[in-house]
Amino acid sequence: MSLDILRNCPLFAALNAAQLAAAASGLRRQSLAAGTVLFHQNDAAAHYYIVEHGLIELDRLSPDGSGKVIELIGPGELFAEAVMFMNLPRYPVTARAVDDSAVLVLRNIALLDLLTTDNTLALHMLGHLSMRLHHLVQEIETLTLHDARYRLANYLLGECERRDTTRLTLPAPKQVIASRLGIKPETFSRLMHSLRSTGVIDVRGATLVVNDLAVLRNLLDSG
Amino acid sequence: MSLDILRNCPLFAALNAAQLAAAASGLRRQSLAAGTVLFHQNDAAAHYYIVEHGLIELDRLSPDGSGKVIELIGPGELFAEAVMFMNLPRYPVTARAVDDSAVLVLRNIALLDLLTTDNTLALHMLGHLSMRLHHLVQEIETLTLHDARYRLANYLLGECERRDTTRLTLPAPKQVIASRLGIKPETFSRLMHSLRSTGVIDVRGATLVVNDLAVLRNLLDSG
Repeated sequence: MSLDILRNCPLFAALNAAQLAAAASGLRRQSLAAGTVLFHQNDAAAHYYIVEHGLIELDRLSPDGSGKVIELIGPGELFAEAVMFMNLPRYPVTARAVDDSAVLVLRNIALLDLLTTDNTLALHMLGHLSMRLHHLVQEIETLTLHDARYRLANYLLGECERRDTTRLTLPAPKQVIASRLGIKPETFSRLMHSLRSTGVIDVRGATLVVNDLAVLRNLLDSG
Repeated sequence: MSLDILRNCPLFAALNAAQLAAAASGLRRQSLAAGTVLFHQNDAAAHYYIVEHGLIELDRLSPDGSGKVIELIGPGELFAEAVMFMNLPRYPVTARAVDDSAVLVLRNIALLDLLTTDNTLALHMLGHLSMRLHHLVQEIETLTLHDARYRLANYLLGECERRDTTRLTLPAPKQVIASRLGIKPETFSRLMHSLRSTGVIDVRGATLVVNDLAVLRNLLDSG
């Protein structure tokens, strides 16, 4: 059960079954009532954690003594593992349970031992984290595009209706239209590429033809 | 100039100036007209890349011979670096310029040499990629919360108006309300936490008090 939670963390994706068991050696489960502090900023860091259920808040004290929430960690998510790799001996944040929670407690030394005895393992872990980064960047792109696509569809439909045609002469360079719609140039390029590749629009020089008004209207309805 | 682009990639954040220069040894710049293929799927992989400007599409051929866009890579972003760490000798995708583009071409061997001569470097890189992952997860959380916050604000305002009060007795457990609004339980928890910590609402058992209807209305207007 605990190993299943580990297996789903990108950090452990490079580990085979024996390595996963070694990384999890000494693993224990800790329940935390809402409001309980798991560790304080500047405590010695010998463990890292995965949230089993509940919600953990990471706070950093500023020099004036006020706390600021840095991150909220939910089920299946790892925290304090970066500290272990950075060779910092102390936690840079305080971890507190927001709701009644449970965390899996893992020993830094168990994973670091594995990494020093198998020098290709760190490379494989880098590869898996890199892939995970790409996926997250794509996910952000999709979420951002959703909004940008809505705005572009709204603009194009508005222009078609105003001029009563589906053949538009773009009134300004693409970058200017992107900027007017509050869309980053690279997002705008991706968006135009996607609309062109699905045949919704054609672009020839400064002329843009909307082939499918219905698809644009659907974007607005679902936005 | 090229080193500035490198410095902004999370992968290189752990490198000091001398290591960065070593990783960039043999770096060259390649211009690509729109439509040009940079490398084909199954080509031997000796390089990884950073987009300087333009847009690069990564396609994977499925067994039936049709291509599928796996990823679009924009300015400042790295690609094909995971391949290098995974010890795959061949690119799993075809890279093609969507727009007129330029990429920085880096040699795998330059970075892998560094990693084998300094065995703490890989750990530092893991630490930096882990931190970057946390930031991206937070960014996704923020983008998702935006939508969820809108739906929750809409629900709460609707209930307040319908019952003509700002003191609501929740008609169902939080999980049920979350599910009815199409919000994941952990997102719902974070959202309630955020509305409570900013004083917009108070929750006491099954009673929810809306302290600030204007903030909720603003959420709807800006959504």
